[in-house]
Amino acid sequence: MLKVGIIGASGYTGAELARVLSGHPKVEITVITSRKWAGRPLGDCYPGLAHIDLKFVNHVEEDVTGKADLFFTALPHKAAMEAVKSCLDAGKKVVDLSADFRLADVKTYEEHYGPHSCPELLSEAVYGLAEIYGDEIAGARLVANPGCYPTSALLPLYPLIKEGIIDAQGLIIDAKSGVTGAGRDANETTHFCHAHESIKAYKIASHRHTPEIEAQLSLAAGDGVQVVFTPHLIPMGRGMLSTIYATPAPNTTTTVTREAVESVWAKAYADSPFVNVAKGDGLPDSAHVRGTNCCIMAVRVDERNGRLIILSAIDNLAKGASTQAIQNMNIMMGWDQSEGLDLAPLYP
Amino acid sequence: MLKVGIIGASGYTGAELARVLSGHPKVEITVITSRKWAGRPLGDCYPGLAHIDLKFVNHVEEDVTGKADLFFTALPHKAAMEAVKSCLDAGKKVVDLSADFRLADVKTYEEHYGPHSCPELLSEAVYGLAEIYGDEIAGARLVANPGCYPTSALLPLYPLIKEGIIDAQGLIIDAKSGVTGAGRDANETTHFCHAHESIKAYKIASHRHTPEIEAQLSLAAGDGVQVVFTPHLIPMGRGMLSTIYATPAPNTTTTVTREAVESVWAKAYADSPFVNVAKGDGLPDSAHVRGTNCCIMAVRVDERNGRLIILSAIDNLAKGASTQAIQNMNIMMGWDQSEGLDLAPLYP
Amino acid sequence: MLKVGIIGASGYTGAELARVLSGHPKVEITVITSRKWAGRPLGDCYPGLAHIDLKFVNHVEEDVTGKADLFFTALPHKAAMEAVKSCLDAGKKVVDLSADFRLADVKTYEEHYGPHSCPELLSEAVYGLAEIYGDEIAGARLVANPGCYPTSALLPLYPLIKEGIIDAQGLIIDAKSGVTGAGRDANETTHFCHAHESIKAYKIASHRHTPEIEAQLSLAAGDGVQVVFTPHLIPMGRGMLSTIYATPAPNTTTTVTREAVESVWAKAYADSPFVNVAKGDGLPDSAHVRGTNCCIMAVRVDERNGRLIILSAIDNLAKGASTQAIQNMNIMMGWDQSEGLDLAPLYP
Amino acid sequence: MLKVGIIGASGYTGAELARVLSGHPKVEITVITSRKWAGRPLGDCYPGLAHIDLKFVNHVEEDVTGKADLFFTALPHKAAMEAVKSCLDAGKKVVDLSADFRLADVKTYEEHYGPHSCPELLSEAVYGLAEIYGDEIAGARLVANPGCYPTSALLPLYPLIKEGIIDAQGLIIDAKSGVTGAGRDANETTHFCHAHESIKAYKIASHRHTPEIEAQLSLAAGDGVQVVFTPHLIPMGRGMLSTIYATPAPNTTTTVTREAVESVWAKAYADSPFVNVAKGDGLPDSAHVRGTNCCIMAVRVDERNGRLIILSAIDNLAKGASTQAIQNMNIMMGWDQSEGLDLAPLYP
Repeated sequence: MLKVGIIGASGYTGAELARVLSGHPKVEITVITSRKWAGRPLGDCYPGLAHIDLKFVNHVEEDVTGKADLFFTALPHKAAMEAVKSCLDAGKKVVDLSADFRLADVKTYEEHYGPHSCPELLSEAVYGLAEIYGDEIAGARLVANPGCYPTSALLPLYPLIKEGIIDAQGLIIDAKSGVTGAGRDANETTHFCHAHESIKAYKIASHRHTPEIEAQLSLAAGDGVQVVFTPHLIPMGRGMLSTIYATPAPNTTTTVTREAVESVWAKAYADSPFVNVAKGDGLPDSAHVRGTNCCIMAVRVDERNGRLIILSAIDNLAKGASTQAIQNMNIMMGWDQSEGLDLAPLYP
Repeated sequence: MLKVGIIGASGYTGAELARVLSGHPKVEITVITSRKWAGRPLGDCYPGLAHIDLKFVNHVEEDVTGKADLFFTALPHKAAMEAVKSCLDAGKKVVDLSADFRLADVKTYEEHYGPHSCPELLSEAVYGLAEIYGDEIAGARLVANPGCYPTSALLPLYPLIKEGIIDAQGLIIDAKSGVTGAGRDANETTHFCHAHESIKAYKIASHRHTPEIEAQLSLAAGDGVQVVFTPHLIPMGRGMLSTIYATPAPNTTTTVTREAVESVWAKAYADSPFVNVAKGDGLPDSAHVRGTNCCIMAVRVDERNGRLIILSAIDNLAKGASTQAIQNMNIMMGWDQSEGLDLAPLYP
Repeated sequence: MLKVGIIGASGYTGAELARVLSGHPKVEITVITSRKWAGRPLGDCYPGLAHIDLKFVNHVEEDVTGKADLFFTALPHKAAMEAVKSCLDAGKKVVDLSADFRLADVKTYEEHYGPHSCPELLSEAVYGLAEIYGDEIAGARLVANPGCYPTSALLPLYPLIKEGIIDAQGLIIDAKSGVTGAGRDANETTHFCHAHESIKAYKIASHRHTPEIEAQLSLAAGDGVQVVFTPHLIPMGRGMLSTIYATPAPNTTTTVTREAVESVWAKAYADSPFVNVAKGDGLPDSAHVRGTNCCIMAVRVDERNGRLIILSAIDNLAKGASTQAIQNMNIMMGWDQSEGLDLAPLYP
Repeated sequence: MLKVGIIGASGYTGAELARVLSGHPKVEITVITSRKWAGRPLGDCYPGLAHIDLKFVNHVEEDVTGKADLFFTALPHKAAMEAVKSCLDAGKKVVDLSADFRLADVKTYEEHYGPHSCPELLSEAVYGLAEIYGDEIAGARLVANPGCYPTSALLPLYPLIKEGIIDAQGLIIDAKSGVTGAGRDANETTHFCHAHESIKAYKIASHRHTPEIEAQLSLAAGDGVQVVFTPHLIPMGRGMLSTIYATPAPNTTTTVTREAVESVWAKAYADSPFVNVAKGDGLPDSAHVRGTNCCIMAVRVDERNGRLIILSAIDNLAKGASTQAIQNMNIMMGWDQSEGLDLAPLYP
């Protein structure tokens, strides 16, 4: 059994890691940390996880790097980079769920997040979009787990741009997230009485996931890509849908068809058990991936003007965070990437 | 007191008409109809409206046109056109909430809805977007009340296109609606257990509100306009948010600023108490217009590429249907358009 | 126009007062207060109320008692008593929405809430259950507006106990409240992600509304009454249902029938437009009173053992707080108690 | 691998069986049936279960009893009894999720459900409350899986009555269920727009789970027991909370304490991994058992009058139906009762 630690286990992504890891056949959770909950059992923080018999440790006051062989760091950015460095220095593998190692370019990072204390690790970190970077992840000691919005946008877009079937420029990503995406912090936005009958956009043209999406699409395009990205908050717990507007590649002489797009996806994800294309008239619905590592995608064409409407549904806490992190661990360990992730969605 | 009738009062828009009309100081509801509920009191169908002491009449079996001076027809398309004609033939005014008279071009109508039995009325019908067509509505005997999606899209877009500040072409309208938009019909989509934790797009590039939006924007542009329109269903009762992606008009030499857009709106809606622009950092939130005739709009610019992101929130059942219909009645009757519509939103 | 002030207008009950008072034909809101929001317009705190052009004043730093003729105090207990005293000392009328003047017995108050700084006002304060104490309210300068749970429990129970038809002892009140009942404070309990799929009881056998219910039922019974009261939080915004288990009065020789109970209610509430009994097979549903001052009641008898199951639905923020406060104001001013309260529920 | 079949797999309990069985290490689902969906793949009915590669068979037209060794029958009552008999006649084991074999007394059954076509099986059927009837279940060929409400009420009550610590008479069970309890049928009650902001009681003093609860409590008491049972529908998907009001046993000389109750539970459920008592100040919350086979219980005492308030939370679809059925299968097969049921709740 691999010993794994969760640094920052009191937040939603930490809890989701604990939920799924507790059913993983090849790992044992040996340490969980939280500054706020230090000394108290996990079950005090998450009563449904009381069967995991562990107490929170304060990783800032106590060195926990000896207690496991692989760590998930589920801390806010900035706090994460210090914890990640400690684990690596102790010779451990790390899957970091923060934004701290997702951007290879330190300038871009610092523009959006402020100073980086260990920029030397940026080039080493592998971007943990498991379906795209599997080979690199396999040999990594540090994997930067993607953000939820980037995961939902990149899975459909990356291969289409790589193959040159759609225009890498002019993409519009209109994304909708459940409230878990706003985290465990209790505030006016996450208050039930406000949130339960509300839809609004936020951080328009300024969300920090934008440079992350652009960095990856630029790699796919081999050229600098800029997108328009608008996140929204909607009244549900888990779930994310990205509706993406694209145009055929400039050099395309004919309309890009649904079949052409699905064909690219089929090839790109032939070995990926978690990425599926909705069949027939079906369209991606967040309800059908709840609690799973799956992504459902679809494309439709506005026949009148050739515009492509691409849809992608994930569970923001699962494939958008914690189960993708576990998938990355599986790959880093040389295991089947599905190990412990055979999760049927909770429905209804 | 003006005697008003509601033909098709058992659906959600009929109930919303009854709710608001029952507090209107200048009208008296004198007849309500429903084939299904004929003979039963309104309170059986909507217990919260039991204070309105009326029984449903079957308007197909019984001529009700003599019972009121102005009728709201809240029937499905096709059924509506017959009822509208009867009322007009009886010399009554009509606000029709169906799609039957919204498209001036009979070919476009028939392409999307099937045969029209009284096309001669299409040219007479006034499109009831009250803030735009107030003068025409004032003299109309037949007002075609706009669809909910068109209302939310046209209020921000119409003046911007009319003024030539944004490009009339290439618009993308990504709209999100609460489940009331799907109507009172109980089916898998509207079942609580499915809908409460689900987001999905539907009728992509094929929703019937598309030609309605395009017809109006073409009038504003003085040229044929085509949009990409994607509706989504989200887990709330009432509320609609349209997120619209636009580019500056082709001949614009500089970036279009937030101030420029807001200035056009300020001028266009100077006399409109129901259209407001979110101030400062505020963004439209459906929670703040629930149960009211208001529309809140905002615009943001992606500074890097000049793309405009325009937002517009309404209550789909109110400004998107029933209260706009009452606003139209007010204008048709020569009353203050706000009569009976001083509704503060139910919040939280 | 009567000038009214809302002291503590930034909470949910304050906002609900503002919403309904802004449509009241005989009053003008002239001052609103909040320590936290002092200096900022109401629309910053509640965007949907931006049409009420007022800025918050800090009533602790500034004497506002001269700015209105009647005050609603919507402050937490303890803070309320000071504000109430100031208003009364300035010769103004007060409807207090806190718990500070609901218990005539200072010992009972202090046992549950701590020291009372103006116990001399307790005997003067009239308990504002409008349907029961209308005469006393008419002449009062201080009305103690009932709690939400007590309102929902007392409206069905008071007349039944007064008439001696049910046993005043052994009552069990199982009450369910929407999350607005937990107030505007953002915490783990009110966080959407927890609350939206959760039901739990809280403060079992220890909720402070228990002595309030018991004090009133004791008055009805002419004897000390003790109840078992269990509040629950359920995933909705507004609404409250009390399910009450009662037995026939001890001296009753026959079973108490539904008809007998409804007959007592019909007599007690003959002049009360806001208290209704569900007809036929109908049962009280919070959805049908949302945003209104109404209470819907019903009773069923378990024929096998004579146990009475009594149900009562209100909107906790409206009849359970703010609209009942306005009803009390109407009575204090000698107006029709329904003035400004002809509110049809927002449904669906 | 044991071959199992699900007869009636298109409903919610059928889907929940499929979800959990698909992760069970010792079984293989070999046949699923539905009259409505016959011929179509499971993924058409439940897209999230598309990984289970099976097509629905019409079990009325086709004999499926040869296709598995153990069957779950998840049909409406009446339809179930025929299917059960066929499976038994073919020599297969059955866990029946309907009400058809839960009542040993045919008269009681027929009074509430109508004629029974195979009453001879009633005495053989074992009531599948796994924690109570484990020994009997181990040897059974037909297990009658308990109803959701009975499960939530009997788990806390059965041992307390058996031990004589509480009065078996006068019990009041006030139960609250999520909307999945109303099944997959789309109607006005289950429509999102009604249900999402609604609480109401239903089938007061007449719900068919009442005789089921009473039959079991009578066995525990060794005497006829009558309860008052009131079910409610609340706006969530899964989850059930029963709030039970009890009094100490008549011969008890002192108050029954929380400790005394918890001591009885500790003894009764010493070997039961799925029944837990909330610790400290914790109270049962449906959110913490979602998707699991667990029951969380608690008791509080109203010190003033000795009344016991007992709480019990389950997931109505899981422990209240499908996972309990799987637990019963495990016991029938001689496996560890937890096999395949190590499910952490989906939270948040």
